Amino acid sequence: MKRIALAETATFRDQGPKMLLVHESPYFKIINFNFRAGQVLPVHSHEIEGQLSILVLEGEGEFLAGDGKTLSARPGDMLISDIAEPHGVRAATDMRVVVTIAPPI
Amino acid sequence: MKRIALAETATFRDQGPKMLLVHESPYFKIINFNFRAGQVLPVHSHEIEGQLSILVLEGEGEFLAGDGKTLSARPGDMLISDIAEPHGVRAATDMRVVVTIAPPI
Repeated sequence: MKRIALAETATFRDQGPKMLLVHESPYFKIINFNFRAGQVLPVHSHEIEGQLSILVLEGEGEFLAGDGKTLSARPGDMLISDIAEPHGVRAATDMRVVVTIAPPI
Repeated sequence: MKRIALAETATFRDQGPKMLLVHESPYFKIINFNFRAGQVLPVHSHEIEGQLSILVLEGEGEFLAGDGKTLSARPGDMLISDIAEPHGVRAATDMRVVVTIAPPI
């Protein structure tokens, strides 16, 4: 059992999204991504079994899907996607999200 | 792929924590618990493989562990626990959390 204080991991990179590994186990992988306004996690997918959730902690932007489709992303919004489906994130403001991937990849 | 707006699920029960199933799949189960101040998710555990995360969205309280141990729980705090370890939540104020269980139980 452990507690992580995500309020203390609000660090950013000018070159691209900051990625912090929160937890990894045989069951799931949890990552905190922090975006400066305008930064993007490009649409990608992996041809493996599993799903992921992306929860917006702070800031606003868009969840990205295939074919240029987008869904608005505000605090408390959660995207759930197959790992094999195209997914990504674009930040309109500084933005923080938590991604949970099960099983871990 | 789907998006859930947790800002829209802030409903409560006077009798005890409100539990809303956000998502269930073979990979993980995601539940939103909303507590009125003073409400408790009692310490419990299940003798099965897997882990869970509990992320505080709003409000304050405590994560509960075995032997009466507690850890403070504020927005952005995440507890990670084996499903087989004793875990629970006590709300000091109205409090909202998201629980992710992998694999689902």
